[in-house]
Amino acid sequence: MNARRRSADRTETIMQTALDLAREVGYAKLSMEAVATRAGVGKDTIYRRWPSKALLFLDAVLSSRITGLEHPDTGDIVADLREVMIRAVDLLAQPPWGPLYQELIGEAQHNPEVAAALNERFIQPQTADTLARLKTAEEQGQLAPEFDLDLAFEVLSGPLYFRLLITHQPMTPDYIDRLLQAVFAGMGPQPQS
Amino acid sequence: MNARRRSADRTETIMQTALDLAREVGYAKLSMEAVATRAGVGKDTIYRRWPSKALLFLDAVLSSRITGLEHPDTGDIVADLREVMIRAVDLLAQPPWGPLYQELIGEAQHNPEVAAALNERFIQPQTADTLARLKTAEEQGQLAPEFDLDLAFEVLSGPLYFRLLITHQPMTPDYIDRLLQAVFAGMGPQPQS
Repeated sequence: MNARRRSADRTETIMQTALDLAREVGYAKLSMEAVATRAGVGKDTIYRRWPSKALLFLDAVLSSRITGLEHPDTGDIVADLREVMIRAVDLLAQPPWGPLYQELIGEAQHNPEVAAALNERFIQPQTADTLARLKTAEEQGQLAPEFDLDLAFEVLSGPLYFRLLITHQPMTPDYIDRLLQAVFAGMGPQPQS
Repeated sequence: MNARRRSADRTETIMQTALDLAREVGYAKLSMEAVATRAGVGKDTIYRRWPSKALLFLDAVLSSRITGLEHPDTGDIVADLREVMIRAVDLLAQPPWGPLYQELIGEAQHNPEVAAALNERFIQPQTADTLARLKTAEEQGQLAPEFDLDLAFEVLSGPLYFRLLITHQPMTPDYIDRLLQAVFAGMGPQPQS
């Protein structure tokens, strides 16, 4: 196989090894040395591509299995948002994804490079995909015309992150249904028209 | 002054020193050794009360200035929620509170003891206070009778934590107004009655 292919395989091996080791010893104890040894490459090979353990870990987590989070368009906005929220929490419930994503966000709290990469590579695309789906729904009259669409992703995702990072309460399908119900219906009394 | 008073003063000094050092060098570089030296106490004195740096830091942050977050009752639920949300983001905007709280939550991602203490000492009381204020508002017909009150704290706080921990977008009074508006009005079209 050609050089590019070999390089891609090596990159894949290094990232998979980083995930395996993080799963075994936790992110805190993960070392570039150990990744290099188990992956059978030189440390230089790793550092050439990833200047820090944090960026290797971020790349490994984001490159791994975070797919299928694009919104379908069945014509029913609540069903489509629900579908992606369910997929996201299912992914977080599969070991080791939840704890690894928590570690990644933990690292982002004191590593601006990781925080920036997380936003650019994952949060912003997710936000854009959600907004695009909501715009279609708005055109179809499925949203309150005056609703602040730019807040929608935060209002829908914020409570999930709050459970993942703070309270660790379970994110069940029932919880997602309650959340969607609350956010769509609103807290306030409905205006009498 | 008596022994209890001296002990309370020493506790105060140690926690203040931990905060000062965390502010200067960041949580990651904070060491019990340095806290003991600057506070002028033995390491044993610190370890007797706080078995780990994480728990000393948590205690110092939570004991420090997190007050004034109880909800007033002016009879206007939106105004009262707004008041506490504004106070919370103002506190986070005062150096060093935002970064220190972020570090604390970062630590909670891989330290279950810190996560549990954060929830028991701060999140759960805040949730209970919010719920109590919302129950009064519900009795006064200021909330949709069918609204899922147990979700309210997560729906209102989740987006703030999402900005603090993930996107780092500013939490301005205008943002809080937009958030309250969105959460009270709801995303969905109002039912025609």
